[in-house]
Amino acid sequence: MNNSPKFAVIGGGSWATAIAKMLCVNLPEIAWYMRSQSAIDHLKAEKHNPNYLSSVEFDTKKLRLTSDINEAIAYADYLIFAIPSAFLSKELEKLTVDLKGKVIFSAIKGIVPETFLIVGEHFHKNFDIPYDNIGVITGPCHAEEVALERLSYLTIACADSEKAKVVANHLSCHFIKTKISDDIIGTEYAAMLKNIYAIAAGIAHGLGYGDNFQSVIMSNAIREMKRFIKKVHKMKRNINNSAYLGDLLVTGYSVFSRNRMFGNMIGKGYTVQAAQHEMSMVAEGYYAVKSAYKLNQDYKAKTPIIDAVYEVLYEGKEAKKVFKKLTEKLD
Amino acid sequence: MNNSPKFAVIGGGSWATAIAKMLCVNLPEIAWYMRSQSAIDHLKAEKHNPNYLSSVEFDTKKLRLTSDINEAIAYADYLIFAIPSAFLSKELEKLTVDLKGKVIFSAIKGIVPETFLIVGEHFHKNFDIPYDNIGVITGPCHAEEVALERLSYLTIACADSEKAKVVANHLSCHFIKTKISDDIIGTEYAAMLKNIYAIAAGIAHGLGYGDNFQSVIMSNAIREMKRFIKKVHKMKRNINNSAYLGDLLVTGYSVFSRNRMFGNMIGKGYTVQAAQHEMSMVAEGYYAVKSAYKLNQDYKAKTPIIDAVYEVLYEGKEAKKVFKKLTEKLD
Repeated sequence: MNNSPKFAVIGGGSWATAIAKMLCVNLPEIAWYMRSQSAIDHLKAEKHNPNYLSSVEFDTKKLRLTSDINEAIAYADYLIFAIPSAFLSKELEKLTVDLKGKVIFSAIKGIVPETFLIVGEHFHKNFDIPYDNIGVITGPCHAEEVALERLSYLTIACADSEKAKVVANHLSCHFIKTKISDDIIGTEYAAMLKNIYAIAAGIAHGLGYGDNFQSVIMSNAIREMKRFIKKVHKMKRNINNSAYLGDLLVTGYSVFSRNRMFGNMIGKGYTVQAAQHEMSMVAEGYYAVKSAYKLNQDYKAKTPIIDAVYEVLYEGKEAKKVFKKLTEKLD
Repeated sequence: MNNSPKFAVIGGGSWATAIAKMLCVNLPEIAWYMRSQSAIDHLKAEKHNPNYLSSVEFDTKKLRLTSDINEAIAYADYLIFAIPSAFLSKELEKLTVDLKGKVIFSAIKGIVPETFLIVGEHFHKNFDIPYDNIGVITGPCHAEEVALERLSYLTIACADSEKAKVVANHLSCHFIKTKISDDIIGTEYAAMLKNIYAIAAGIAHGLGYGDNFQSVIMSNAIREMKRFIKKVHKMKRNINNSAYLGDLLVTGYSVFSRNRMFGNMIGKGYTVQAAQHEMSMVAEGYYAVKSAYKLNQDYKAKTPIIDAVYEVLYEGKEAKKVFKKLTEKLD
């Protein structure tokens, strides 16, 4: 891989760290931007990220670490964004380097709260990036299992299949299998919607519903996701592929998912504010549901689960009553 | 419900006990056959089944308990069979009463090992029951959650929708929602195939694969199930409905599933014999995979997961190697 394109990872969290680990298997060097200079100093000295996936040891000679986002972007041909969607706009405000010609892959699973766009659309509309230069990296993949080198499957979506292949090849390794797709809109919406369904699963769990109902929620969620995405971008896709159903399941069944945890607190009677405070971070699905609900005012897909989560989180309705009504709409 | 048809539950296990509980909500009386006279005596004296779901208290005045299967069958218009498929043939050998005119619903999730038929086919071929009098009761439903009155959804399938409605109405209650279907073949195969996929999930877990891979197995399993059932009986069905996908998930994600447990032991290195001995019972999926594999010699659906489980359980191949190969076939 001598003529390899250059990669930069943007973000210092667990998913960014997992992606940096994958790239380091295949590349002699990557740029890695993280906001925190002290995390960078720690990484340089101790060979691991102090805050996330700290068991992963890096060959620091391979890392061009920087707390200057422009430096990382200037270095690379391929940019992989893996920061929480809530911080994306703020980070992009810092840009002085031109994004023109850069290939931008989003590993962010969410909605940009300021624009209510998925990340690909945000770059396209606000930064004039052509869709051929935009891609998505999607799971099912808990970063924690990448740290343990447990076999995981990623889907790399880009309208330009050559670029999808480049990214796929540089992420593939003995613990990562990749598949390419041309459904950038569908995979990104799926990654965003699944967080809403994880909140729903959490609320149900918090309210005392059991495993039988959990499986009914998931079975209804994938049908709802199919209907919704079909309205957003109609194309031939198998909603049961790993990038859609697999990603839904790995999150919806995870007791570690922030979204599911957030939902669980709501189901147990926390207010939205109290749950957010307790978690010291906003779950991605919190923004996603507002956006999906509003988009669906036009699309008019049948989305009883999204509607229920929206009513609980944004209209202050009682979770118990809303979910009782929801149970009548599922089958 | 004065002119209600009469129901008999055949079986003394946890699923039979759960169904008896549901029927007792709606009916003044049911017949209930269980083999063990001592369990019957205990139930009469203590109001609960000593061996299964023992927290469920019965109004024993409603129960016509009998250890004579013919007495239960003679009593009822609708028979609900809920015994392990491995014991069905032996129980049916005892029959002296005619099954003619009886409506037979199977709540058995498996293959009759002697004939390698699903239960509906077994009754049709060996007892001349017309398909209009044969039905299936399927989950997703852990009996243990019925005991706790946690909301669960059942699908009641019968070619004759009126009979499906009768059974659905008599099982519905404040903790059970029902849906009818005309896909008796598909729902019964789904219920049988899911046990194979639960074994596969268990083997993977036993081998050390994680949650990311589990979601990939489930996502591939539902696509494989769709292909397989389509070959058996082609009709319009949404494989993501609760009776198919929901049932797969509730079993495939359950740490209590006997099939998943059995697979887990195999993955951890137990021989088939040792695992069966340890569990003191054969997991349904053990028979199911032999039957599915053999049927598929004709159908030729692409079934890498079924093939892998078969190779491990029946061809003595090493689970680790077989699953390593399997990972190449999934996506």
